[in-house]
Amino acid sequence: MHDNTEPALTEPDRLAHSQALARQAQLTKPAGALGRLEALSAWACAVQGACPAQPFERPAVVIFAGDHGVARTAGTSAYPPEVTAQMVLNFLRGGAAANVLAGQIGARVEVVDVSVDCAPEYADDLRPGFARDRIRRSSGSIDLEDAMTADECRRALALGRAIADRLVDEGVDLLIPGDMGIGNTTPAAAVAGILTGARPDDITGRGTGIDDITLVRKLETVAAAMRRGAQFHGDPDALLACVASPDMAAMSGFLEQAARRRTPVVLDGVVSCAVALVTRERCPGAEKWWVAGHRSTEPASTRALEALGLEPLIDLGLRLGEGTGALLAVPVINAAILTLSEMATFASAGVSDKEN
Amino acid sequence: MHDNTEPALTEPDRLAHSQALARQAQLTKPAGALGRLEALSAWACAVQGACPAQPFERPAVVIFAGDHGVARTAGTSAYPPEVTAQMVLNFLRGGAAANVLAGQIGARVEVVDVSVDCAPEYADDLRPGFARDRIRRSSGSIDLEDAMTADECRRALALGRAIADRLVDEGVDLLIPGDMGIGNTTPAAAVAGILTGARPDDITGRGTGIDDITLVRKLETVAAAMRRGAQFHGDPDALLACVASPDMAAMSGFLEQAARRRTPVVLDGVVSCAVALVTRERCPGAEKWWVAGHRSTEPASTRALEALGLEPLIDLGLRLGEGTGALLAVPVINAAILTLSEMATFASAGVSDKEN
Repeated sequence: MHDNTEPALTEPDRLAHSQALARQAQLTKPAGALGRLEALSAWACAVQGACPAQPFERPAVVIFAGDHGVARTAGTSAYPPEVTAQMVLNFLRGGAAANVLAGQIGARVEVVDVSVDCAPEYADDLRPGFARDRIRRSSGSIDLEDAMTADECRRALALGRAIADRLVDEGVDLLIPGDMGIGNTTPAAAVAGILTGARPDDITGRGTGIDDITLVRKLETVAAAMRRGAQFHGDPDALLACVASPDMAAMSGFLEQAARRRTPVVLDGVVSCAVALVTRERCPGAEKWWVAGHRSTEPASTRALEALGLEPLIDLGLRLGEGTGALLAVPVINAAILTLSEMATFASAGVSDKEN
Repeated sequence: MHDNTEPALTEPDRLAHSQALARQAQLTKPAGALGRLEALSAWACAVQGACPAQPFERPAVVIFAGDHGVARTAGTSAYPPEVTAQMVLNFLRGGAAANVLAGQIGARVEVVDVSVDCAPEYADDLRPGFARDRIRRSSGSIDLEDAMTADECRRALALGRAIADRLVDEGVDLLIPGDMGIGNTTPAAAVAGILTGARPDDITGRGTGIDDITLVRKLETVAAAMRRGAQFHGDPDALLACVASPDMAAMSGFLEQAARRRTPVVLDGVVSCAVALVTRERCPGAEKWWVAGHRSTEPASTRALEALGLEPLIDLGLRLGEGTGALLAVPVINAAILTLSEMATFASAGVSDKEN
């Protein structure tokens, strides 16, 4: 079992960060004219510990799949819970949006069954033993009961850490947390609501596109979960066990270990943002290793990003999860890196700098 | 000389557009969950006349370079006019931001000296005869005099049309208008101000990063140009000659001919947005062939895009021109196209659709 404190969390490289900003000032463009790409290039240098940084060429998206008790008992989603397992098979066959967007940027796609609610053999013809790491079948219905036991939560955290460790060891240079789970915006809203102090109706969105009646049910479910979980504000592992889910706990271990392994992460939609919030509770400073890929239409995503101090790169109304919004942001990140490393300087190009 | 009305402007393909939206509804994701990528994929199908569309793999950015009388006489820029020619050489050597971002997506970079204010041999060692198509040296100072004569404007429009024709004939599938010219946000603001009815202080920005004193001078210059040009609201060619510039006129011919040749365009920053506005005056409907690549920090960019009915894809605080913001948007456009063409459908993947 992984030791929670090894390796110790360290900071991104401040010197490389400063060098990047200094270099930006010498490039053949007005100071600041590349907008947020300039700070983004400095972040990339800091997390790589080198200025200029290299473009990220070995990214990986890990899709943490799990079912959520609330989808079955409280009916908070527009889709039946069976879709989670069906979509896992779709990922394994390469047909989902995340597969397509990962293909565009040359990213690996890994799918992990953390807590899908079906017989464990469902994917064996595509990937023998696929569900062998599964923590449990579905989470508990968090409006009424814990999502999982403390032991299941520990095992889920360790599972996520082990995945990050393996991918970093294999040379992956950028990690993206993806999610798949019918009902998962309900625990995400509950976690984000508790940790940002928002009210249920400020933080609950329409997820996959629910109607007004379902939204009322979802609001009641989020409110009930927030009442159950509020006591664990300062105890992130207990909060995960109480109102999150095994797939979210695994994603939290993944985010934490990525930071401990000095590997940058692009956050995706509302599930990853809520998990990022709770991960920072356990591991303050981890957020320095993250950028926000996009702004989901789910209100909890914006609240969580504000609390994390992160500004999304893409804002195109996506609300799909799977890592899709983060995957869209990777070319922007690489654009920032490439301008820093490849542009001429005023001196090298013989271009006159500003008059004053 | 090119005939202004050949080929006639046609509309993007409505059938392909409808087919794309119908296909989006069958893909394995909740309806609407890809946000603006869904409408973007339909636009791509419409301009390609095929559903699904193919990703754009042969884009080209054309940088229209010219100097602006106001930069020398009114001093509206933070940089000396000599920088225009220096940056042209930087483009030809591959060292500018546009070169780097074009390289990232495999786009060609073409640079055209339309009205740079220097001896015409300045680039001959890099590209013999480079300035041979030049219309004139600099524009007139538009607060006091016309930017160019009517004949120069006609020749500049024809130059831009000929460039679009050549690139389309060579198989380019996506065109990006880039700009380079110290002082060019002043005529862009004047043109956008006249055509949107905005006041000078609502439409004038800090360009390359001018200080407060220079901003006051720039505001006075924009206001004077708007007074001079207001009479030509319904006469786009006269408006270009009065308060735009030869490089902007060439870009206008380029945008117009791209639409006539059924070739899509990604608009860039404030110069291209102002030129797009005046081009639509001459060629209503051309805007259906365009998407807005990004939102520049220049206020005239936002006003012009609103008037055109276009919503930018990227909003990262860039204010560089050169086509850079549009180049950043190309991977997003291709992501939209790829999701439409490569994702599995509910039926093909055996995934359950929404319950109602």
